[in-house]
Amino acid sequence: MSDFHIRHLAIVGVGLIGGSLALALRQAGAVQRITGVGRNLANLQRAKALGVIDDFVTEFEDMDSPDVIVLAVPLGAMRAMMEKLKPFVSETTVLTDVGSAKQSILKDAEAVFGAAPVNMVPGHPIAGNEKHGVEAAFKTLFDQRRVILTPHAHSAAQATSTVRQMWEACGAEVVEMNATHHDEVLAATSHLPHMLAYALVDTLARMDDSQEIFDFAAGGFRDFTRIASSDPQMWHDICVANREALVEVLRAFNEDLHRLTEAVEQGDGEFLKETFTRAKAARDQFCG
Amino acid sequence: MSDFHIRHLAIVGVGLIGGSLALALRQAGAVQRITGVGRNLANLQRAKALGVIDDFVTEFEDMDSPDVIVLAVPLGAMRAMMEKLKPFVSETTVLTDVGSAKQSILKDAEAVFGAAPVNMVPGHPIAGNEKHGVEAAFKTLFDQRRVILTPHAHSAAQATSTVRQMWEACGAEVVEMNATHHDEVLAATSHLPHMLAYALVDTLARMDDSQEIFDFAAGGFRDFTRIASSDPQMWHDICVANREALVEVLRAFNEDLHRLTEAVEQGDGEFLKETFTRAKAARDQFCG
Repeated sequence: MSDFHIRHLAIVGVGLIGGSLALALRQAGAVQRITGVGRNLANLQRAKALGVIDDFVTEFEDMDSPDVIVLAVPLGAMRAMMEKLKPFVSETTVLTDVGSAKQSILKDAEAVFGAAPVNMVPGHPIAGNEKHGVEAAFKTLFDQRRVILTPHAHSAAQATSTVRQMWEACGAEVVEMNATHHDEVLAATSHLPHMLAYALVDTLARMDDSQEIFDFAAGGFRDFTRIASSDPQMWHDICVANREALVEVLRAFNEDLHRLTEAVEQGDGEFLKETFTRAKAARDQFCG
Repeated sequence: MSDFHIRHLAIVGVGLIGGSLALALRQAGAVQRITGVGRNLANLQRAKALGVIDDFVTEFEDMDSPDVIVLAVPLGAMRAMMEKLKPFVSETTVLTDVGSAKQSILKDAEAVFGAAPVNMVPGHPIAGNEKHGVEAAFKTLFDQRRVILTPHAHSAAQATSTVRQMWEACGAEVVEMNATHHDEVLAATSHLPHMLAYALVDTLARMDDSQEIFDFAAGGFRDFTRIASSDPQMWHDICVANREALVEVLRAFNEDLHRLTEAVEQGDGEFLKETFTRAKAARDQFCG
């Protein structure tokens, strides 16, 4: 284990992700003091009672100069949070976030700070589940998971190194890429599947015999639609924040599904078998 | 436990479903002798070695008058199997199957027998997973699962009762409905999700950076695409057999997804939040 250590960490938004980060860093002995920041007093009190944070504040002015600030609020709240935070970020404070879209974070930072701060290194842990809230937090959430950092053109090497070590202390594997590429990759692997799961459940729910339809859904359906139980507000924010890349993969998928529908309609067995075989091979190869 | 008992059961196609049926009936003490029927000698020998079947034949003429015959072959092989079987089905033999589409089975039976035999009661256990082969069989596969029977207009009550008791002995809950309705319900809950999973993986696999894309897929993606590892031949057969109902739900889904895509493109936050909220509520309510 390295001797990496954060003296004072502030986590803005102590939910599943923020709370799990706190628990993982504490477990690793990589943090001395964790301050929770938020609007919801009851949630912060719960987080403290659960041992997730040491103390909390509801206003940034009471934050007491943290060395690292992690923004773990929904994407749609990022810009307003940065506005509030701005007067209290010193030049040496490392600033990062856990948002699922990264170009929007940089745009938010540019809008608020004029230019993205040199000590700001956006990040995205590829982990989570359909639950939310600090009660759902657990210390191994990031264990052996990927975290993508998207440093901007002027991110300081020292700040990037701090954020990288913070996630590595949680057991994560850290990779770096640019924000645009991040948003394309995540649109394909995460945002598109969520759209499909939501759309499928909604399509079935609006059918006349929806009650019966769900009654006959088996295990495969349960797994397939699990992500449709995700937080609607969070996914609304992701759709808005990553609109461009998401629309592109939705269109590509729409076309492919249309072609598949035609093949089913025309009884084009060869096309069907080829598509299914190719998909199975890809899934078996990549997902094990 | 009832005193239901099958003297001699023949299972045509000893794979995941046929093999699990054998194991469950044996566990329940509900069968005296199980004969496996198939073309693949090695598979039948494995099934016997695993204790799934008592004996096996590769030709129906050697089958030795079973009381119940279960067709557990892919949908596309059903008609040819009935042709071969026809000379060896006595008037008292109960005939059932485990196919995922039920109108096609009745059409096959009408084509082969002139009219569906009175002792024929089509069935469909809503169970299974993405694996296949007798090695994947296990005795609790049908435990607390639904089995849908779709007796035709002239199915004998006695035959329906026998097939019902057979599945109940396996721990399943048996319901009856007509074949058309079965095919509509299954198109929505099973066949459509499989199409989406196959299409999604295929869409991503054909992208330029597919290797990297799959590298960043997280747990949700794994669950979501698990069913894309299902047997391509089996799903080809299902698409062909249940074409009409499947095309209808594919079209309904296509329309909904198109509307969702437009909402993402136009940044129609209200539509997105409403859709996601409705879907989450339906999923949480129906899938628990």
